Amino acid sequence: MSIETRLKDMGIILPVPVVPVANYVPFVLTGSLLVISGQLPLVDGQLPAPFKGQIGAEVDEANGRAAARQCAINVIAQIKAATGDLDHVKRIVRLGGFINAAPSFTTLPAIMNGASDLMVDLFGEAGRHARTTVGAHLPMSAAVEVEAMVELK
Amino acid sequence: MSIETRLKDMGIILPVPVVPVANYVPFVLTGSLLVISGQLPLVDGQLPAPFKGQIGAEVDEANGRAAARQCAINVIAQIKAATGDLDHVKRIVRLGGFINAAPSFTTLPAIMNGASDLMVDLFGEAGRHARTTVGAHLPMSAAVEVEAMVELK
Amino acid sequence: MSIETRLKDMGIILPVPVVPVANYVPFVLTGSLLVISGQLPLVDGQLPAPFKGQIGAEVDEANGRAAARQCAINVIAQIKAATGDLDHVKRIVRLGGFINAAPSFTTLPAIMNGASDLMVDLFGEAGRHARTTVGAHLPMSAAVEVEAMVELK
Repeated sequence: MSIETRLKDMGIILPVPVVPVANYVPFVLTGSLLVISGQLPLVDGQLPAPFKGQIGAEVDEANGRAAARQCAINVIAQIKAATGDLDHVKRIVRLGGFINAAPSFTTLPAIMNGASDLMVDLFGEAGRHARTTVGAHLPMSAAVEVEAMVELK
Repeated sequence: MSIETRLKDMGIILPVPVVPVANYVPFVLTGSLLVISGQLPLVDGQLPAPFKGQIGAEVDEANGRAAARQCAINVIAQIKAATGDLDHVKRIVRLGGFINAAPSFTTLPAIMNGASDLMVDLFGEAGRHARTTVGAHLPMSAAVEVEAMVELK
Repeated sequence: MSIETRLKDMGIILPVPVVPVANYVPFVLTGSLLVISGQLPLVDGQLPAPFKGQIGAEVDEANGRAAARQCAINVIAQIKAATGDLDHVKRIVRLGGFINAAPSFTTLPAIMNGASDLMVDLFGEAGRHARTTVGAHLPMSAAVEVEAMVELK
């Protein structure tokens, strides 16, 4: 089954990918490596209220995981924009996860699983990636930001 | 027009690149990818007072952008040291921007534009890069730190 | 002298590498680049008390450096798991260091030297890497997290 079909079966409709309004671009291809800019959990270009603020304070764990998943959806939309066809993905090489967590909230990896799980659900073994998860203050007070490196066929 | 000429026209004199005083190096070339260590906004090896502290607290937005630009100048100085000639740059692949922002300051991307704009002013289309911008506490309480990945010809 | 022999001479016994319990993997090889997930300073799969908390608060500088060194040992264990033989390393390309530092503690690079020094002690010139060191809140309140990019022969 193609990745495109699998995406449809999962009921995910990719958003129009966000185009940066500044002097950078959402992705750069170097050799067979696609480097994708940090993605916020935007929906229709806006940051939904449940994905805004610190996890463990304004944002609960379930919404934190959903925010990480939304970041991953936006990463996938950029891969689609870059390749035209998600079946060109050979491997999700790396995800970098930045979690806007309250000082007392330390189960950051559980939040980032919202992104990782989606990659494996969609790409199978090719979706298993190296990962770095750290806490960070984020643009727009977003709850999560995810960047990616992807190897293309 | 060569990048070197363009740099001169922009009135930018590259600093002597900072050499780390520890067991790491300012850049490593792997294949055609030049990986550049995180650069602080040092001038003559010192952190100027206006570039020290949290943006939104001790450092205002204009100085924050200037600090990001200075980090980018230091990145360019390392590219020059690595290649001998900036015209060897094929593409600025990625900038990673770490912004030392006060909790209430969330327009981190506006700060990072100080680095991104310089790359595009100097390298044109080849300067358009993927970018990740997050908040972070930084060495020496610097306002900004920028790392880079560059593809060489 | 082989790296494996050197490791033995240094008295370092590599731990059984930590296998993530989620949908990500400890390393991905893309071309000749080995991308290694962020490693915490775990010992026998546990975070030792001296490596838990903020450096400059609960964790002193010596323990911070030791934590960075332990992260590097865990990175090396992953390289070993990926390659079967540390002599396959051509170059440690990059270390990313995330330091869980108290707001007043700003000599983050001194902490990260605990990781960098070990790489050079073990791999010699091939151990000299590009490096980015920033402050971050970390999973489990670990004092340090280190990720890596390694070029293989």
